[in-house]
Amino acid sequence: MTELAMNALMEQTGKAAREASRILCAAPTASKNKALKILAGLIREKEASIALANSMDVSAARSAGLAPAFIDRLAVTPKIIETMALGCEQIAELPDPVGSIEDVRPQASGIMVGRMRVPLGVLGIIYEARPNVTIDAAALAIKSGNAAILRGGSEAIRTTAALGLLVARSLKEAGLPERAIQVAPTADRAFVGELIRARKYVDVIIPRGGKGLIARLEQESQIPMIHHLDGICHTYVDASADIGMAVSVADNAKTQRYAPCNATETLLVHISAAAEFLPRIGAIYAEKGVEMRCDGRALALLSGAGFKALRAQPEDWDTEYNAPIISIAVVDSLSEAIEFINTHGSHHTDAIITRDLQAQSRFLREVDSGSVMVNCSTRLADGFVYGLGAEIGISTGKLHARGPVGLEGLTSLKYIVLGHGEGRH
Amino acid sequence: MTELAMNALMEQTGKAAREASRILCAAPTASKNKALKILAGLIREKEASIALANSMDVSAARSAGLAPAFIDRLAVTPKIIETMALGCEQIAELPDPVGSIEDVRPQASGIMVGRMRVPLGVLGIIYEARPNVTIDAAALAIKSGNAAILRGGSEAIRTTAALGLLVARSLKEAGLPERAIQVAPTADRAFVGELIRARKYVDVIIPRGGKGLIARLEQESQIPMIHHLDGICHTYVDASADIGMAVSVADNAKTQRYAPCNATETLLVHISAAAEFLPRIGAIYAEKGVEMRCDGRALALLSGAGFKALRAQPEDWDTEYNAPIISIAVVDSLSEAIEFINTHGSHHTDAIITRDLQAQSRFLREVDSGSVMVNCSTRLADGFVYGLGAEIGISTGKLHARGPVGLEGLTSLKYIVLGHGEGRH
Repeated sequence: MTELAMNALMEQTGKAAREASRILCAAPTASKNKALKILAGLIREKEASIALANSMDVSAARSAGLAPAFIDRLAVTPKIIETMALGCEQIAELPDPVGSIEDVRPQASGIMVGRMRVPLGVLGIIYEARPNVTIDAAALAIKSGNAAILRGGSEAIRTTAALGLLVARSLKEAGLPERAIQVAPTADRAFVGELIRARKYVDVIIPRGGKGLIARLEQESQIPMIHHLDGICHTYVDASADIGMAVSVADNAKTQRYAPCNATETLLVHISAAAEFLPRIGAIYAEKGVEMRCDGRALALLSGAGFKALRAQPEDWDTEYNAPIISIAVVDSLSEAIEFINTHGSHHTDAIITRDLQAQSRFLREVDSGSVMVNCSTRLADGFVYGLGAEIGISTGKLHARGPVGLEGLTSLKYIVLGHGEGRH
Repeated sequence: MTELAMNALMEQTGKAAREASRILCAAPTASKNKALKILAGLIREKEASIALANSMDVSAARSAGLAPAFIDRLAVTPKIIETMALGCEQIAELPDPVGSIEDVRPQASGIMVGRMRVPLGVLGIIYEARPNVTIDAAALAIKSGNAAILRGGSEAIRTTAALGLLVARSLKEAGLPERAIQVAPTADRAFVGELIRARKYVDVIIPRGGKGLIARLEQESQIPMIHHLDGICHTYVDASADIGMAVSVADNAKTQRYAPCNATETLLVHISAAAEFLPRIGAIYAEKGVEMRCDGRALALLSGAGFKALRAQPEDWDTEYNAPIISIAVVDSLSEAIEFINTHGSHHTDAIITRDLQAQSRFLREVDSGSVMVNCSTRLADGFVYGLGAEIGISTGKLHARGPVGLEGLTSLKYIVLGHGEGRH
């Protein structure tokens, strides 16, 4: 497709999204919930046609020689169908964030000033070849009153298109604009380039997926983004930690699952807890096959206790492994731990294990991350666990929404002013 | 200066800002207030040396043939000295937004989840040759716990440097890091280019000033921005408006001052109010020398009543005049007015004059602007008028902060999680 044609396609898609967003922003809660419930029904009813479209995507991916893990994420199983349908029903049950009014207060001039929660407008959501994201993203956008342009991985194009048709039909049947949620009209990668420059039509870009993609978008997007780049999470075992709790939490934070972004990648241990704590956690990691990459003091303690451990290289402290590997360092103070986390972390999720009130208070205040935790596993950083009901992703940015982003993160507050003819004098 | 040297300078400045921000984010309220009060005292005490530095800037600007209006903004009068000092004292009196904790609630897993308000980190503030902005921005940054790099217009370099020294001294005397607020170390324009790309060191860019600058930054900044591009504000006179109120508000909104971004640029009038309203407001505008650029129906009514009016060109509906000019259109419905505002406005501030409850409710909900007003003048969109105590600017963005941005807008919420050894299962 020529650049000109691509641009025209973006114009068309963007204009339709903007128009639909104007209607969706004021749509009654009941209509939005109705669309979500119809969508859940359609997903179950049309399982066979979704599966057919998906089987074509899967065969094409197999012919192209894509990795089994990739195909795993691409494949839509009956369980995924049910999860998607259930997700829509759950989002329908959540309170509507849009239109709520807060803090209306009289001011000296006579006016009343308050704030109203409103949708962001049009979301541009860019994700990998994972069909379920199409439905998650569509449902969250509908409930939060946002229009959306969904650009999933090209390998899932047939499945995404099939799901997009169901979303459009459910919007229409609920009396809402069917173009409120649009699947990108082309699998051409150049469309992403158009989307991240369409400032007139798109209010926020939400990328989900590969670090490479997100790093590129961070350089190139002309539209604000809600995203996370890295998940370099820390667990810090304080001098005063309950060692039994520290062992159980550090185990869970690293080994419950290795791939998620909220798994701990670096373990910091206060010098006065190290001799007791490190051999105990070392035994667990060794047994589970977790490779330990250590600074000098941690290495001495672990090797001394008979565990195999490696010396960490400088880049280890800045690495997200997403694998059975952990870096371990001993620190001399709480201040050093906080400084270490703020320097090497990715502002995602960091935890302290402590019994000391002052240590808790300093850690909570001074660690500059979306989620800061006391005495629990970093793996708990999640929209569902936090009670948000659903999440579009986890933000490591510092403006707007930090940490898990649910419906509220897809809205913002505008000022509303109620007067009686007041002017400025 | 070579690009390499400029880059090294940014590295140095950025690193110092980041380090200072780590301390300032946890600084006690009392220390921050102490710094602000010392600063107020120093500004008054050092009036003579500020005036001396400023007189050199002013002479240089005169020699360079800069416009009188430019020199007006550059010149520091005794009144401006006192306003700067008073501003610091007022900001010291405002409640500290940092560290407040909200919504701590138990979740099913046993953890408690809440949110803490924290500084954004390091602000990059870019502004014109207006010395008072140096002090306003420094005071807001200090109180909100943010470090800042201030880059004022190069024509004010001596004044800005003199004020920067006072800020550094007040921070030091209050026991805070003196490099928390840094004046850009060079007047070279290339430093702005470095600043807007220093993602590692700068968390948000806040530009104040020329539309050209802001449009350029919107294209080039790799760091999120809080800013406003245009102030195309509307006043809509609804069918049910109290015509006397509509006349008085439309007068104030346009003529109280022409230059500010919150002055009304376009007047929309419902067809059934037009015949009564337009001749009355036309008489006032004509008397005050406000040029009226009208659509066909408004032109007929105003000319018919004997006022001089022009036919608007299409670009008039998208123009911020900042001058005694107003564009006027007649609409057939509230829906048309809302659609017009959302299409031609700049998401800044828009007002309806109405007695109708449903019209109020739809206008508040559907007009997509930072401030949406009922029965008052758009000129009231202002941080002080809204009770924020101070403002760093007005945002027309839709993420993070909309409308006037005060101390709260310079902070965000992070999640805090309090556990008892919980893990993910």
